[in-house]
Amino acid sequence: MQLLKERILQEGKNLGSGILKVDGFINHQVDPELMDRCGEEFARRFRDLNPTKILTAEISGIAPALMTARHMGLPVVYARKNKPITMPDQVFLTLAPSHTKGRMVELIISPEFLGHGERVVIIDDFLASGATIAGLVRLAQAAGAQIIGIGTLIEKTFEGGRALLSTLNIPIESLVYITSMDGEEIVIDPDR
Amino acid sequence: MQLLKERILQEGKNLGSGILKVDGFINHQVDPELMDRCGEEFARRFRDLNPTKILTAEISGIAPALMTARHMGLPVVYARKNKPITMPDQVFLTLAPSHTKGRMVELIISPEFLGHGERVVIIDDFLASGATIAGLVRLAQAAGAQIIGIGTLIEKTFEGGRALLSTLNIPIESLVYITSMDGEEIVIDPDR
Repeated sequence: MQLLKERILQEGKNLGSGILKVDGFINHQVDPELMDRCGEEFARRFRDLNPTKILTAEISGIAPALMTARHMGLPVVYARKNKPITMPDQVFLTLAPSHTKGRMVELIISPEFLGHGERVVIIDDFLASGATIAGLVRLAQAAGAQIIGIGTLIEKTFEGGRALLSTLNIPIESLVYITSMDGEEIVIDPDR
Repeated sequence: MQLLKERILQEGKNLGSGILKVDGFINHQVDPELMDRCGEEFARRFRDLNPTKILTAEISGIAPALMTARHMGLPVVYARKNKPITMPDQVFLTLAPSHTKGRMVELIISPEFLGHGERVVIIDDFLASGATIAGLVRLAQAAGAQIIGIGTLIEKTFEGGRALLSTLNIPIESLVYITSMDGEEIVIDPDR
Protein backbone atom coordinates (compact mmCIF):
# COMPACT_ATOMS: atom_id res chain seq x y z
CA MET A 1 0.00 0.00 0.00
CA GLN A 2 1.75 3.05 -1.36
CA LEU A 3 0.47 5.57 1.21
CA LEU A 4 1.80 3.56 4.16
CA LYS A 5 5.09 2.78 2.39
CA GLU A 6 5.74 6.48 1.81
CA ARG A 7 4.94 7.36 5.41
CA ILE A 8 7.31 4.71 6.74
CA LEU A 9 10.11 5.92 4.47
CA GLN A 10 9.47 9.55 5.48
CA GLU A 11 8.99 9.15 9.22
CA GLY A 12 9.93 5.62 10.29
CA LYS A 13 13.20 5.09 12.14
CA ASN A 14 15.31 1.97 12.34
CA LEU A 15 16.43 1.83 15.98
CA GLY A 16 18.50 -1.32 15.47
CA SER A 17 17.81 -4.92 16.57
CA GLY A 18 14.85 -5.03 14.21
CA ILE A 19 12.99 -2.29 16.06
CA LEU A 20 11.06 -0.01 13.70
CA LYS A 21 9.88 3.22 15.29
CA VAL A 22 6.59 4.39 13.81
CA ASP A 23 5.46 6.30 16.91
CA GLY A 24 4.44 9.35 14.92
CA PHE A 25 1.55 7.73 13.05
CA ILE A 26 0.82 4.24 14.48
CA ASN A 27 2.16 3.47 17.97
CA HIS A 28 1.84 6.56 20.17
CA GLN A 29 0.58 9.35 17.96
CA VAL A 30 -1.91 7.95 15.45
CA ASP A 31 -2.94 9.37 12.09
CA PRO A 32 -6.65 8.51 11.94
CA GLU A 33 -6.97 9.21 8.22
CA LEU A 34 -4.08 6.86 7.44
CA MET A 35 -5.55 4.18 9.72
CA ASP A 36 -8.91 4.63 8.04
CA ARG A 37 -7.37 4.10 4.60
CA CYS A 38 -5.57 0.99 5.89
CA GLY A 39 -8.84 -0.30 7.35
CA GLU A 40 -10.55 0.28 4.02
CA GLU A 41 -7.83 -1.73 2.27
CA PHE A 42 -8.10 -4.63 4.74
CA ALA A 43 -11.87 -4.61 4.29
CA ARG A 44 -11.41 -4.85 0.52
CA ARG A 45 -9.00 -7.78 0.86
CA PHE A 46 -11.01 -9.80 3.40
CA ARG A 47 -14.63 -8.99 2.53
CA ASP A 48 -15.15 -12.07 0.34
CA LEU A 49 -14.26 -14.36 3.25
CA ASN A 50 -17.45 -13.27 5.03
CA PRO A 51 -15.98 -12.69 8.50
CA THR A 52 -18.27 -12.12 11.47
CA LYS A 53 -15.74 -10.45 13.76
CA ILE A 54 -12.38 -8.64 13.82
CA LEU A 55 -9.90 -9.65 16.53
CA THR A 56 -6.78 -7.82 17.69
CA ALA A 57 -4.58 -7.39 20.76
CA GLU A 58 -4.25 -4.24 22.81
CA ILE A 59 -2.70 -1.75 22.39
CA SER A 60 -1.32 -0.90 18.98
CA GLY A 61 -3.60 -3.22 17.06
CA ILE A 62 -6.71 -1.33 18.16
CA ALA A 63 -6.55 1.56 15.67
CA PRO A 64 -6.17 -0.47 12.44
CA ALA A 65 -8.56 -3.18 13.70
CA LEU A 66 -11.22 -0.62 14.63
CA MET A 67 -11.03 1.04 11.23
CA THR A 68 -11.17 -2.33 9.44
CA ALA A 69 -14.22 -3.29 11.50
CA ARG A 70 -15.86 0.03 10.63
CA HIS A 71 -15.45 -0.57 6.91
CA MET A 72 -16.84 -4.10 7.22
CA GLY A 73 -19.71 -3.26 9.57
CA LEU A 74 -18.44 -5.76 12.17
CA PRO A 75 -17.63 -5.65 15.88
CA VAL A 76 -13.98 -5.75 16.94
CA VAL A 77 -12.66 -7.53 20.04
CA TYR A 78 -9.30 -6.64 21.52
CA ALA A 79 -7.58 -9.21 23.71
CA ARG A 80 -6.68 -7.66 27.06
CA LYS A 81 -3.26 -7.99 28.68
CA ASN A 82 -4.68 -7.51 32.17
CA LYS A 83 -7.98 -8.98 33.28
CA PRO A 84 -10.33 -6.09 34.13
CA ILE A 85 -12.77 -6.49 37.01
CA THR A 86 -15.65 -6.33 34.55
CA MET A 87 -14.59 -9.66 33.02
CA PRO A 88 -16.06 -12.96 34.25
CA ASP A 89 -13.88 -15.34 36.30
CA GLN A 90 -13.75 -17.91 33.51
CA VAL A 91 -11.82 -16.56 30.51
CA PHE A 92 -9.68 -17.68 27.60
CA LEU A 93 -6.06 -16.89 28.49
CA THR A 94 -2.75 -17.61 26.81
CA LEU A 95 0.81 -16.36 27.15
CA ALA A 96 2.81 -14.78 24.36
CA PRO A 97 6.31 -13.30 24.36
CA SER A 98 6.33 -9.53 23.89
CA HIS A 99 9.00 -8.34 21.48
CA THR A 100 9.01 -4.79 22.85
CA LYS A 101 8.69 -5.72 26.54
CA GLY A 102 11.19 -8.57 26.65
CA ARG A 103 8.89 -10.80 28.71
CA MET A 104 5.80 -12.97 28.46
CA VAL A 105 2.46 -11.16 28.51
CA GLU A 106 -1.02 -12.55 28.99
CA LEU A 107 -3.64 -12.33 26.25
CA ILE A 108 -7.17 -12.63 27.63
CA ILE A 109 -10.55 -12.82 25.92
CA SER A 110 -13.92 -13.14 27.58
CA PRO A 111 -16.04 -16.06 26.32
CA GLU A 112 -18.90 -13.53 26.13
CA PHE A 113 -17.42 -12.01 22.98
CA LEU A 114 -15.80 -14.84 21.06
CA GLY A 115 -17.69 -18.02 20.51
CA HIS A 116 -18.35 -21.15 18.52
CA GLY A 117 -18.98 -20.62 14.83
CA GLU A 118 -17.52 -17.12 14.57
CA ARG A 119 -15.47 -16.39 11.45
CA VAL A 120 -12.61 -14.22 12.61
CA VAL A 121 -10.09 -11.99 10.84
CA ILE A 122 -7.11 -10.95 12.98
CA ILE A 123 -5.76 -7.43 12.36
CA ASP A 124 -2.57 -6.19 14.03
CA ASP A 125 0.06 -3.51 13.52
CA PHE A 126 3.11 -5.74 13.00
CA LEU A 127 3.85 -9.24 11.78
CA ALA A 128 7.34 -9.98 13.12
CA SER A 129 7.90 -13.29 14.91
CA GLY A 130 4.17 -13.96 14.76
CA ALA A 131 4.06 -14.84 18.45
CA THR A 132 1.26 -12.43 19.40
CA ILE A 133 -0.87 -13.45 16.45
CA ALA A 134 -0.24 -17.14 17.19
CA GLY A 135 -1.50 -16.41 20.72
CA LEU A 136 -4.69 -14.84 19.32
CA VAL A 137 -5.14 -17.91 17.11
CA ARG A 138 -4.90 -20.20 20.16
CA LEU A 139 -7.51 -18.10 21.99
CA ALA A 140 -9.87 -18.24 19.03
CA GLN A 141 -9.42 -21.99 18.70
CA ALA A 142 -10.11 -22.43 22.42
CA ALA A 143 -13.31 -20.45 21.90
CA GLY A 144 -14.36 -22.67 19.00
CA ALA A 145 -14.03 -19.80 16.54
CA GLN A 146 -12.43 -20.12 13.13
CA ILE A 147 -9.58 -17.83 12.09
CA ILE A 148 -10.08 -17.18 8.38
CA GLY A 149 -7.55 -14.43 7.68
CA ILE A 150 -4.74 -12.35 9.12
CA GLY A 151 -3.91 -8.77 8.18
CA THR A 152 -1.03 -6.63 9.42
CA LEU A 153 0.06 -3.12 8.57
CA ILE A 154 3.78 -3.94 8.43
CA GLU A 155 5.42 -7.31 7.96
CA LYS A 156 9.11 -7.78 8.72
CA THR A 157 9.76 -10.66 6.36
CA PHE A 158 13.04 -11.63 8.03
CA GLU A 159 11.60 -12.51 11.45
CA GLY A 160 9.79 -15.74 10.58
CA GLY A 161 6.21 -14.85 11.43
CA ARG A 162 4.74 -15.88 8.09
CA ALA A 163 6.41 -19.31 8.28
CA LEU A 164 5.09 -19.81 11.83
CA LEU A 165 1.53 -19.02 10.75
CA SER A 166 1.65 -20.79 7.37
CA THR A 167 0.35 -24.06 8.82
CA LEU A 168 -3.02 -22.35 9.27
CA ASN A 169 -3.44 -22.29 5.47
CA ILE A 170 -5.30 -18.98 5.47
CA PRO A 171 -4.60 -15.68 3.70
CA ILE A 172 -2.00 -13.51 5.44
CA GLU A 173 -2.07 -10.00 4.03
CA SER A 174 0.34 -7.23 4.94
CA LEU A 175 0.14 -3.71 3.59
CA VAL A 176 3.92 -3.14 3.62
CA TYR A 177 6.73 -5.71 3.52
CA ILE A 178 10.05 -4.74 5.07
CA THR A 179 12.71 -7.09 3.79
CA SER A 180 15.77 -5.79 5.61
CA MET A 181 16.70 -3.49 8.49
CA ASP A 182 20.49 -3.81 8.43
CA GLY A 183 22.38 -0.81 9.79
CA GLU A 184 20.10 2.20 9.64
CA GLU A 185 18.31 1.06 6.49
CA ILE A 186 14.60 0.36 6.07
CA VAL A 187 14.26 -1.70 2.90
CA ILE A 188 10.69 -2.02 1.62
CA ASP A 189 9.66 -4.52 -1.04
CA PRO A 190 8.64 -2.28 -3.98
CA ASP A 191 6.48 -4.89 -5.73
CA ARG A 192 3.84 -5.76 -3.17
CA MET B 1 -26.66 11.31 23.12
CA GLN B 2 -29.66 9.10 22.59
CA LEU B 3 -27.92 6.26 20.72
CA LEU B 4 -25.39 5.71 23.50
CA LYS B 5 -28.03 6.05 26.24
CA GLU B 6 -30.13 3.32 24.66
CA ARG B 7 -27.16 1.02 24.27
CA ILE B 8 -26.17 1.43 27.93
CA LEU B 9 -29.71 0.72 29.07
CA GLN B 10 -29.93 -2.34 26.81
CA GLU B 11 -26.52 -3.90 27.41
CA GLY B 12 -24.77 -2.14 30.31
CA LYS B 13 -24.54 -3.93 33.64
CA ASN B 14 -24.19 -2.43 37.10
CA LEU B 15 -21.67 -4.71 38.84
CA GLY B 16 -21.87 -2.80 42.13
CA SER B 17 -19.35 -0.41 43.74
CA GLY B 18 -19.92 2.03 40.87
CA ILE B 19 -18.54 -0.38 38.26
CA LEU B 20 -20.44 -0.12 34.97
CA LYS B 21 -19.79 -2.98 32.60
CA VAL B 22 -19.94 -1.88 28.95
CA ASP B 23 -17.61 -4.58 27.64
CA GLY B 24 -19.90 -5.45 24.77
CA PHE B 25 -19.54 -2.16 22.89
CA ILE B 26 -16.78 -0.02 24.47
CA ASN B 27 -14.25 -1.80 26.69
CA HIS B 28 -13.43 -5.20 25.21
CA GLN B 29 -15.67 -5.69 22.24
CA VAL B 30 -16.11 -2.36 20.44
CA ASP B 31 -18.91 -1.25 18.14
CA PRO B 32 -17.05 0.84 15.54
CA GLU B 33 -20.20 2.43 14.13
CA LEU B 34 -21.27 3.59 17.61
CA MET B 35 -17.78 4.93 18.33
CA ASP B 36 -17.81 6.72 14.99
CA ARG B 37 -21.11 8.42 15.83
CA CYS B 38 -19.73 9.42 19.24
CA GLY B 39 -16.60 10.81 17.56
CA GLU B 40 -18.76 12.79 15.17
CA GLU B 41 -20.67 14.26 18.11
CA PHE B 42 -17.48 15.24 19.98
CA ALA B 43 -16.17 16.83 16.79
CA ARG B 44 -19.36 18.88 16.52
CA ARG B 45 -19.09 20.04 20.13
CA PHE B 46 -15.38 20.93 20.10
CA ARG B 47 -14.75 22.11 16.54
CA ASP B 48 -15.19 25.81 17.31
CA LEU B 49 -12.40 25.66 19.89
CA ASN B 50 -9.91 25.04 17.05
CA PRO B 51 -7.95 22.20 18.66
CA THR B 52 -4.70 20.98 17.09
CA LYS B 53 -4.59 17.57 18.74
CA ILE B 54 -6.69 14.93 20.51
CA LEU B 55 -5.22 13.32 23.63
CA THR B 56 -6.33 10.17 25.43
CA ALA B 57 -4.96 7.37 27.62
CA GLU B 58 -4.59 3.76 26.62
CA ILE B 59 -6.55 1.53 26.45
CA SER B 60 -10.26 2.22 26.41
CA GLY B 61 -9.93 5.86 25.41
CA ILE B 62 -8.35 4.97 22.09
CA ALA B 63 -11.51 4.06 20.15
CA PRO B 64 -13.57 7.20 20.89
CA ALA B 65 -10.49 9.46 20.65
CA LEU B 66 -9.48 7.98 17.30
CA MET B 67 -12.93 8.50 15.85
CA THR B 68 -13.10 12.07 17.19
CA ALA B 69 -9.71 12.80 15.66
CA ARG B 70 -10.89 11.34 12.35
CA HIS B 71 -13.90 13.64 12.24
CA MET B 72 -11.74 16.67 13.07
CA GLY B 73 -8.84 15.82 10.74
CA LEU B 74 -6.39 15.85 13.68
CA PRO B 75 -3.76 13.46 15.04
CA VAL B 76 -4.48 11.64 18.29
CA VAL B 77 -1.89 10.83 20.96
CA TYR B 78 -2.52 8.14 23.53
CA ALA B 79 -0.56 8.26 26.76
CA ARG B 80 1.21 4.95 27.36
CA LYS B 81 1.11 3.08 30.67
CA ASN B 82 4.41 1.34 29.97
CA LYS B 83 7.34 3.06 28.29
CA PRO B 84 8.02 1.26 25.00
CA ILE B 85 11.62 0.90 23.81
CA THR B 86 10.85 3.17 20.87
CA MET B 87 10.35 6.15 23.20
CA PRO B 88 13.21 8.52 24.05
CA ASP B 89 14.76 8.41 27.53
CA GLN B 90 13.37 11.82 28.45
CA VAL B 91 9.57 11.73 28.68
CA PHE B 92 6.64 13.36 30.43
CA LEU B 93 5.47 10.96 33.14
CA THR B 94 2.87 11.19 35.88
CA LEU B 95 1.09 8.76 38.19
CA ALA B 96 -2.66 8.33 38.40
CA PRO B 97 -4.76 5.94 40.47
CA SER B 98 -6.55 3.34 38.35
CA HIS B 99 -10.15 2.75 39.40
CA THR B 100 -10.34 -0.68 37.77
CA LYS B 101 -6.84 -1.86 38.77
CA GLY B 102 -6.82 -0.66 42.37
CA ARG B 103 -3.30 0.75 42.12
CA MET B 104 -1.32 3.67 40.68
CA VAL B 105 -0.44 3.48 37.00
CA GLU B 106 2.02 5.54 35.01
CA LEU B 107 0.89 7.82 32.19
CA ILE B 108 3.71 8.59 29.76
CA ILE B 109 3.89 10.89 26.75
CA SER B 110 6.88 11.48 24.51
CA PRO B 111 7.87 15.15 24.09
CA GLU B 112 8.07 14.37 20.37
CA PHE B 113 4.29 14.38 20.08
CA LEU B 114 3.02 16.97 22.55
CA GLY B 115 4.59 20.37 22.62
CA HIS B 116 4.39 24.04 23.35
CA GLY B 117 1.46 25.86 21.80
CA GLU B 118 -0.68 22.81 21.05
CA ARG B 119 -4.42 23.20 21.68
CA VAL B 120 -5.54 19.89 23.09
CA VAL B 121 -8.91 18.23 23.57
CA ILE B 122 -8.90 15.21 25.88
CA ILE B 123 -11.28 12.38 24.97
CA ASP B 124 -11.80 9.37 27.24
CA ASP B 125 -14.37 6.65 27.82
CA PHE B 126 -15.36 7.52 31.42
CA LEU B 127 -15.41 10.55 33.67
CA ALA B 128 -15.62 9.11 37.19
CA SER B 129 -13.19 10.46 39.81
CA GLY B 130 -11.40 12.42 37.09
CA ALA B 131 -8.00 11.12 38.22
CA THR B 132 -6.86 9.80 34.84
CA ILE B 133 -7.94 12.95 33.04
CA ALA B 134 -6.26 15.12 35.69
CA GLY B 135 -3.10 13.11 35.00
CA LEU B 136 -3.39 13.85 31.27
CA VAL B 137 -3.87 17.53 32.09
CA ARG B 138 -0.64 17.53 34.16
CA LEU B 139 1.25 15.91 31.28
CA ALA B 140 -0.06 18.47 28.81
CA GLN B 141 0.83 21.34 31.12
CA ALA B 142 4.34 19.92 31.58
CA ALA B 143 4.64 19.86 27.79
CA GLY B 144 3.54 23.49 27.52
CA ALA B 145 0.35 22.53 25.74
CA GLN B 146 -3.04 24.03 26.52
CA ILE B 147 -6.00 21.81 27.39
CA ILE B 148 -9.05 23.50 25.87
CA GLY B 149 -11.75 20.87 26.30
CA ILE B 150 -12.59 17.49 27.78
CA GLY B 151 -15.03 14.97 26.33
CA THR B 152 -16.09 11.62 27.77
CA LEU B 153 -18.57 9.03 26.61
CA ILE B 154 -20.04 8.38 30.05
CA GLU B 155 -19.93 10.60 33.13
CA LYS B 156 -20.79 9.19 36.53
CA THR B 157 -21.96 12.40 38.13
CA PHE B 158 -21.72 11.02 41.69
CA GLU B 159 -17.94 10.38 41.69
CA GLY B 160 -16.69 13.95 41.77
CA GLY B 161 -14.70 14.14 38.54
CA ARG B 162 -16.39 17.25 37.21
CA ALA B 163 -15.72 19.14 40.44
CA LEU B 164 -12.06 18.10 40.38
CA LEU B 165 -11.64 19.38 36.81
CA SER B 166 -13.80 22.49 37.16
CA THR B 167 -10.84 24.68 38.18
CA LEU B 168 -9.59 24.35 34.60
CA ASN B 169 -12.51 26.54 33.44
CA ILE B 170 -12.89 24.69 30.15
CA PRO B 171 -15.86 22.90 28.57
CA ILE B 172 -16.40 19.36 29.88
CA GLU B 173 -18.80 17.48 27.62
CA SER B 174 -20.15 14.01 28.30
CA LEU B 175 -22.45 12.13 25.95
CA VAL B 176 -24.33 10.31 28.74
CA TYR B 177 -24.74 11.30 32.41
CA ILE B 178 -25.29 8.50 34.91
CA THR B 179 -26.68 10.01 38.09
CA SER B 180 -27.05 6.92 40.27
CA MET B 181 -25.97 3.29 40.39
CA ASP B 182 -27.61 2.18 43.62
CA GLY B 183 -28.42 -1.51 43.84
CA GLU B 184 -28.63 -2.89 40.31
CA GLU B 185 -29.97 0.32 38.82
CA ILE B 186 -28.40 2.44 36.09
CA VAL B 187 -30.09 5.84 36.25
CA ILE B 188 -29.41 8.07 33.25
CA ASP B 189 -30.20 11.79 33.21
CA PRO B 190 -32.96 12.04 30.55
CA ASP B 191 -32.48 15.74 29.85
CA ARG B 192 -28.88 15.99 28.65
